[in-house]
Amino acid sequence: MKRTVYYISDGTGITANTLGRSLLTQFEHVSFEEITVPYVNTHDKAVSILKEINGIYQRDGLKPIIFATLVNKEIHDILSDSKGIFMDFFKTFIGPLEEELELKSTHTVGRSHGLLDYNNYMLRINAVNYALSTDDGINYKDYDKADFILVGVSRCGKTPTCLYLALNFGAYAANYPFTEEDISHGDLPAFLKPFRHKIYGLTIEAQRLNLIRHIPFINTSTRSIEEIAAEIVARTNFKRRIY
Amino acid sequence: MKRTVYYISDGTGITANTLGRSLLTQFEHVSFEEITVPYVNTHDKAVSILKEINGIYQRDGLKPIIFATLVNKEIHDILSDSKGIFMDFFKTFIGPLEEELELKSTHTVGRSHGLLDYNNYMLRINAVNYALSTDDGINYKDYDKADFILVGVSRCGKTPTCLYLALNFGAYAANYPFTEEDISHGDLPAFLKPFRHKIYGLTIEAQRLNLIRHIPFINTSTRSIEEIAAEIVARTNFKRRIY
Repeated sequence: MKRTVYYISDGTGITANTLGRSLLTQFEHVSFEEITVPYVNTHDKAVSILKEINGIYQRDGLKPIIFATLVNKEIHDILSDSKGIFMDFFKTFIGPLEEELELKSTHTVGRSHGLLDYNNYMLRINAVNYALSTDDGINYKDYDKADFILVGVSRCGKTPTCLYLALNFGAYAANYPFTEEDISHGDLPAFLKPFRHKIYGLTIEAQRLNLIRHIPFINTSTRSIEEIAAEIVARTNFKRRIY
Repeated sequence: MKRTVYYISDGTGITANTLGRSLLTQFEHVSFEEITVPYVNTHDKAVSILKEINGIYQRDGLKPIIFATLVNKEIHDILSDSKGIFMDFFKTFIGPLEEELELKSTHTVGRSHGLLDYNNYMLRINAVNYALSTDDGINYKDYDKADFILVGVSRCGKTPTCLYLALNFGAYAANYPFTEEDISHGDLPAFLKPFRHKIYGLTIEAQRLNLIRHIPFINTSTRSIEEIAAEIVARTNFKRRIY
């Protein structure tokens, strides 16, 4: 029988999803039925979820696992009374932080992902526009503005990695497609040479692309988009612009 | 003086970043100097970070705050000995989960974001390609495949929201630009009507776009991309395809 898992938040649920998912992947032989419930921000919504959780416990005889990020104390108290295993990621760590910072937290719902931060917003929009306007080599006169230029043959993950870097890090990431010819030539095209320091190769066939020397390569056939992005950011000490 | 914050992981650092950032936003009047260190996966790397953290404590007289997701026990034990405030998001919750599931966790580094899951990878690539191929109304013959069709005037966040939905939820999200004319006409263009149930309006000027009835609108001028995406997903009960 599948174990039911709830991700519950009074905000978007993104944080509860991310950490909860990370924890579950450590139990690879268990099947989970996952339910995400964002914006649980009223007494009635909380009570309705509580009843649903208790109903599932009665039906299955297994305690649902609840990963929560609840800033609102009333909502927190309602749900912590459920028949499930209740883990609140905020509550657990806010206490020690308040003590160390000698401050009370603001208990403001949705500050983490919902904050209207115009700067953040514009950084992200501009980074996405940059990625789109330089996708697949369509525009290389703007390479001086790039934080990263990803090169590689088609279908090696260049476009999604650039978009991921734009959306999640605010990075300006361009990509340029390598042809078989570029690769067998064994050197970078001349117009790319001035930007060598920000070029990263993505490859699904490590041996072949190693023919091009002097630029770092990441083998994407064993990596997720997140991993490729994190690897590039880590290698360059790029300081992310947004969170 | 800025308080130094470390996000340390033996994986990509994405989980540590996400939850740590959520916690910090609850302390809005404190300035933080944030340092992300992913892939801390050897004894030497851990010892080097430990020295850096202790050095900062000596320099500032303030304990650095450490948000960690460390699956490797040796690395965990080295860093938990630092002079900083050490909070490990995995360690804290893995115990209760092991007890409830009556299983030992696999302690596998990088399962959360690094898992090579070809299905996940292809879902994401296909969703990104769908978003790009249907961006800004360029291709509406594929609207039957859409999970969502976002409509709105230019510069209201359609493109980044579609890409965010593709990358983070595996959703097929198209977008179609509304002109002033469409809006003053007060009805959906005829070819969009069959898809009314999956159309969401994004607006920066609520009053004007409310002229178009029968479709839900989200005011994007007060929302982040994550919030817009979470709102759309929540309203439709869309079951995310990837995590």
